[in-house]
Amino acid sequence: MAVYTEIGDEDLARLLADYDIGEPLALKGIAEGVENSNYFLQTTKGRFFLTLYEKRVDEGDLPFFMGLLEHVAAGGVTCPAPVHGRDGRIVRRVAGRPAALVTFLDGVSPKRPSVAQCGEAGAALARLHEAGRGFALTRPNALSIAGWPALAKASEARANEVAPALRETITAELAHLQAVWPRDLPSGVIHADLFPDNALFVGERLTGVIDFYFACNDAFAYDIAIGLNAWCFEPDRSFNITKARALLSRYQAIRPLQADELAALPILARGSALRFLLTRLHDWLNHDRAALVRPKDPLEYLAKLRFHQHVSDANAYGL
Amino acid sequence: MAVYTEIGDEDLARLLADYDIGEPLALKGIAEGVENSNYFLQTTKGRFFLTLYEKRVDEGDLPFFMGLLEHVAAGGVTCPAPVHGRDGRIVRRVAGRPAALVTFLDGVSPKRPSVAQCGEAGAALARLHEAGRGFALTRPNALSIAGWPALAKASEARANEVAPALRETITAELAHLQAVWPRDLPSGVIHADLFPDNALFVGERLTGVIDFYFACNDAFAYDIAIGLNAWCFEPDRSFNITKARALLSRYQAIRPLQADELAALPILARGSALRFLLTRLHDWLNHDRAALVRPKDPLEYLAKLRFHQHVSDANAYGL
Repeated sequence: MAVYTEIGDEDLARLLADYDIGEPLALKGIAEGVENSNYFLQTTKGRFFLTLYEKRVDEGDLPFFMGLLEHVAAGGVTCPAPVHGRDGRIVRRVAGRPAALVTFLDGVSPKRPSVAQCGEAGAALARLHEAGRGFALTRPNALSIAGWPALAKASEARANEVAPALRETITAELAHLQAVWPRDLPSGVIHADLFPDNALFVGERLTGVIDFYFACNDAFAYDIAIGLNAWCFEPDRSFNITKARALLSRYQAIRPLQADELAALPILARGSALRFLLTRLHDWLNHDRAALVRPKDPLEYLAKLRFHQHVSDANAYGL
Repeated sequence: MAVYTEIGDEDLARLLADYDIGEPLALKGIAEGVENSNYFLQTTKGRFFLTLYEKRVDEGDLPFFMGLLEHVAAGGVTCPAPVHGRDGRIVRRVAGRPAALVTFLDGVSPKRPSVAQCGEAGAALARLHEAGRGFALTRPNALSIAGWPALAKASEARANEVAPALRETITAELAHLQAVWPRDLPSGVIHADLFPDNALFVGERLTGVIDFYFACNDAFAYDIAIGLNAWCFEPDRSFNITKARALLSRYQAIRPLQADELAALPILARGSALRFLLTRLHDWLNHDRAALVRPKDPLEYLAKLRFHQHVSDANAYGL
């Protein structure tokens, strides 16, 4: 949530000379994104979003992320479209950092998404899954089940400072998921982080899906499970089945789920809850108290995990 | 350089209901301003800048600042124009903070202003001084000569950690300025902080003067002295007389300086250099190392002070 690299007017002039997007009218550092520097750029030809990649994003992944945005934008997903320079390239260096320019999208992220907005999120996931077909590059999901033991290990010594017996809960859940995790579900490119923060709306209409920096190849249904956790719980941690039904039915109107995907949904939802519990727990325990960014509460995901532990089949999600 | 208060989509909807400025399309927190929360707001009717006042700005001063913007905008100054709500009010509360909405101005701040841009800054100061006439409210300049002894006192114990004999330099300069400070110069509303950071340009054309939170009543020529210090030194700390000539001549084309103002310029330039030396020294010594904002170098202003100490008359500024 900060601009780490300052761009002066001379850097900006040099940058724009590489593009055919008009003359600069305004450049404002945006307090958005945790580890990158983001700018709103207005030129005589339009509005753009400039990102300088600081450290959390691996430069080697940029061709995947940028290629994916371009591929799925062409397939009808409302996402930022990368802008090519006069030399044809998307990624270049600005102020010493790898940087990319994409189109600016209207829209505001909802704090408490409505039922209709949850439906829009479901439809967006389905469109993304369909549009991602044929994309040539691949990127493994480092934060799926193979990555969880190391994450759990990193926090185990201090997990019980955060909640009683949290360490034991995590160990048992991980063992269970390793025993039953589904392996052969339909897969492809998933967003893997479609939270309301990463969706833009004008009113009830979704106008943008953003922040593809966790996008990877994994089971489509796992992306839906992430979405159920991210969109369908209320601030009091209760599960809103109406929102889940909206998300799933709008998804299925575009890409119907197979029987094995439906059957796997409760397990995938537990896995997704564990994934965010683990990463949040890590950030919580290793948070620099001086930083402006407040870590997110890991216990929110413990509550979600407990909910899904009591789900026996996908009917609990409104189907 | 940070957003301290987050505005959710519901806060935004509530806010916009109070205005006749269309429907929200985008809201982005801007990494600009040291102590306020600033947002770029795009609606179906235009672009705006929303500020939530956190602590450095005294709420009691907002009628002065907002009234001044409105008064001088009507007088031809290119500055943000406050937007009135349906109830006629400019200042209201958003997310528990005093807040105001102003028009968004195009333009980028120069890191190293050109001669032409220095001229534009001079003309902008003159237009502001003329346009401020007739503004009913007043605000004393807390950071003029009467305020400097307390500032000097606050840093004196540690001043010499920053430069050899800095404490003695400050004490002697303050005594000198108190003996010779001019008292009866033409006065009115001044910006008091017109640095390149607070000016917006599209190419060589000034498109906006922003950040009026130091505006106050004081000698017009003191504002020019601040401008000479802020615009006419090079990064190597040398004085660029061509830039000074541009600033002063464009100023005088709109508001010719009287003989007493010209005569006072070297003393006012020393005073202005001391003022920024003192405030930067204070921030330097009391800087929270964990904060993202890096304090500005006080010694830049010691160098400027030393330059003006050797100036005998305004000819040194290119006149």
